Amino acid sequence: MVVETRSAQFESIPLDSGATLAPVEIAYETYGHLNAAKSNAILVTHAFTGDAHAAGISHETGKPGWWDNMIGPGKAFDTDRYFVICSNVLGGCQGTTGPGAKNPATGRPYAMSFPVITIRDMVRLQRMLVQSLGIERLLGVAGGSMGGMQALEWAVTYPEMVLSVIPIATTWRHSAQQIAFNEVGRQAIMADPDWSDGNYYDTNKPPARGLSIARMVGHITYMSDESMREKFGRRLREKEKFGFDFGVDFEVESYLRYRGNQFVSRFDANSYLYITKAEDYFDLTNGSGRLADAFRDVGTRFLVISFTSDWLYPSYQSQEIVRVLRRMNGDVAYCDLQSNYGHDAFLVDIAEQTELVRGFLDSTARTASSARTRGVA
Amino acid sequence: MVVETRSAQFESIPLDSGATLAPVEIAYETYGHLNAAKSNAILVTHAFTGDAHAAGISHETGKPGWWDNMIGPGKAFDTDRYFVICSNVLGGCQGTTGPGAKNPATGRPYAMSFPVITIRDMVRLQRMLVQSLGIERLLGVAGGSMGGMQALEWAVTYPEMVLSVIPIATTWRHSAQQIAFNEVGRQAIMADPDWSDGNYYDTNKPPARGLSIARMVGHITYMSDESMREKFGRRLREKEKFGFDFGVDFEVESYLRYRGNQFVSRFDANSYLYITKAEDYFDLTNGSGRLADAFRDVGTRFLVISFTSDWLYPSYQSQEIVRVLRRMNGDVAYCDLQSNYGHDAFLVDIAEQTELVRGFLDSTARTASSARTRGVA
Repeated sequence: MVVETRSAQFESIPLDSGATLAPVEIAYETYGHLNAAKSNAILVTHAFTGDAHAAGISHETGKPGWWDNMIGPGKAFDTDRYFVICSNVLGGCQGTTGPGAKNPATGRPYAMSFPVITIRDMVRLQRMLVQSLGIERLLGVAGGSMGGMQALEWAVTYPEMVLSVIPIATTWRHSAQQIAFNEVGRQAIMADPDWSDGNYYDTNKPPARGLSIARMVGHITYMSDESMREKFGRRLREKEKFGFDFGVDFEVESYLRYRGNQFVSRFDANSYLYITKAEDYFDLTNGSGRLADAFRDVGTRFLVISFTSDWLYPSYQSQEIVRVLRRMNGDVAYCDLQSNYGHDAFLVDIAEQTELVRGFLDSTARTASSARTRGVA
Repeated sequence: MVVETRSAQFESIPLDSGATLAPVEIAYETYGHLNAAKSNAILVTHAFTGDAHAAGISHETGKPGWWDNMIGPGKAFDTDRYFVICSNVLGGCQGTTGPGAKNPATGRPYAMSFPVITIRDMVRLQRMLVQSLGIERLLGVAGGSMGGMQALEWAVTYPEMVLSVIPIATTWRHSAQQIAFNEVGRQAIMADPDWSDGNYYDTNKPPARGLSIARMVGHITYMSDESMREKFGRRLREKEKFGFDFGVDFEVESYLRYRGNQFVSRFDANSYLYITKAEDYFDLTNGSGRLADAFRDVGTRFLVISFTSDWLYPSYQSQEIVRVLRRMNGDVAYCDLQSNYGHDAFLVDIAEQTELVRGFLDSTARTASSARTRGVA
């Protein structure tokens, strides 16, 4: 399945900060076909460094999507049945307006004059896209990590527009430790002289070293102690004994350096700053800590998934969501999946996740269909 | 108790890399009094960024030692009974020869021409110090984190010289994840243009930004998810609502920036590189993975301590040591102490640790004394 990234433009979008962004563009892809009733649409929301290319083979790059193992004919998100949409987030650097986009007021890239955005701002733009496609109600919103935050935000902010959500490996608010790791990444970028207060677009010399360091930290948090032991252990990289110097000794060093450098070629450092900030601001309760209040008007069905070895978004954070929803008699299924892959599990350890998602979507679709038949939807 | 850091010089020291360092100096402090039999000496070994000033009030700085809550009259390491020694590690920057020391061959700082060192090299130098004090056998060697690695190395390399060891919150070999965190710190330092391949001693402009980033990562790993939640949560720093900019929003950001900057004034970036490398090379089994072989000739008593919330040096690593020693009928006591403080627990959560150490040292001293009386020691 060869796919193309398309784009939608809107005149403006109001933001949580009070600022307005005008105009705004959003990159998206779709897979499968929207039915006549427009009742089979599922929005898939991406994690921090993801993009709109979730599935299929990209027409532009020839590369498979980031969740291609989950989206397609017969897969968890079965494109023979569902119409799947994925868009790049606001603030991103893969087609949707972000700090690297041209500011129409100056004719130059926004850089750090781009307004600080929130997860809710991202979701607001997604809603504009969904409505522009003529869809009044989504069958589901599903995503892992920051994608899960967006799914939760959809349920709370537009409950009338979403029948079900699937937040995976995520949290209802960013913790001090999660903020701390993001802050290290931001400081690494901003400490790089090439960052130049964000004005590196003209010089074509981005803060590669800082961004690479940030990504290295990220990769450690995406894996688990176990998965790093299994994948690398203390294996040396192309040598029999220690080098007694500061070149690469261990495989794990080589891997981190490689992933750090590779990331620089595909991601914008300023987007890194803005998107991590949106994550850190994320708190479904707006600071009250009362999750029951946030869920008060939510009739959405939930499938919450966490992974046992995920220490970046630990299972207890998902369980806090589930506990509150259950206490409110909410419609919530939950599974803490056994995996050694850490936070990456939602991308790679997909066998059980596929069964859960497939069954949940199927029952959601049947419930919706019978409700429509009875005329109550 | 006001204490002074002293210094011992030796002509040369052979290193694991094959290099020889000549001359070599070691900074140390002592607390309490060496008895006539020279049988009451305990060596305390410091963690990564520690120094020789473990206890008392420094004559030079007026500051208490890093383990002052554990060492002193009536404390865990009771200076009314024991003669406690603490020295700065080889490769350090607090008085012991390290990359910032003058290379006698050039008259300039070693910088990156300093030889790469190992934990065993650190211990070899400590042994020279101990012997120069006329001590033939230590009652104990005790330390947390990298200090614990040194304690283990003492037991394996000089078993005839140490009656007991107390490795705390440590490991018998550095894991892939532990190497990975160290590698991020090293890369952050080396990515800072001010690092200048290590030649910043003359410019007086150290790689402050890189070293600060490295330290920020470190601090996250020293705390636990729980302790960060308790200490910071999502509390904002001197503001009522989000700034919607990239200044400090959260307390945890402010804390990390502060600790990062503060660290730069007291620690040498090149020492950071060398000491983390020594940690990463640390493997008590020299790559065989057979801990039983390493402990074959070890008759030393062990008190192994870990902490439940320590995810940097998780309890299972201590338990691997204990399991092997028990299988060999070794003399080993072990406790996994309940604490929320993460890896920092061995420095701050000391009530139970104090009881364990006190009892263990007391029984070690009594065993040694009765052995001497019977003439078998």
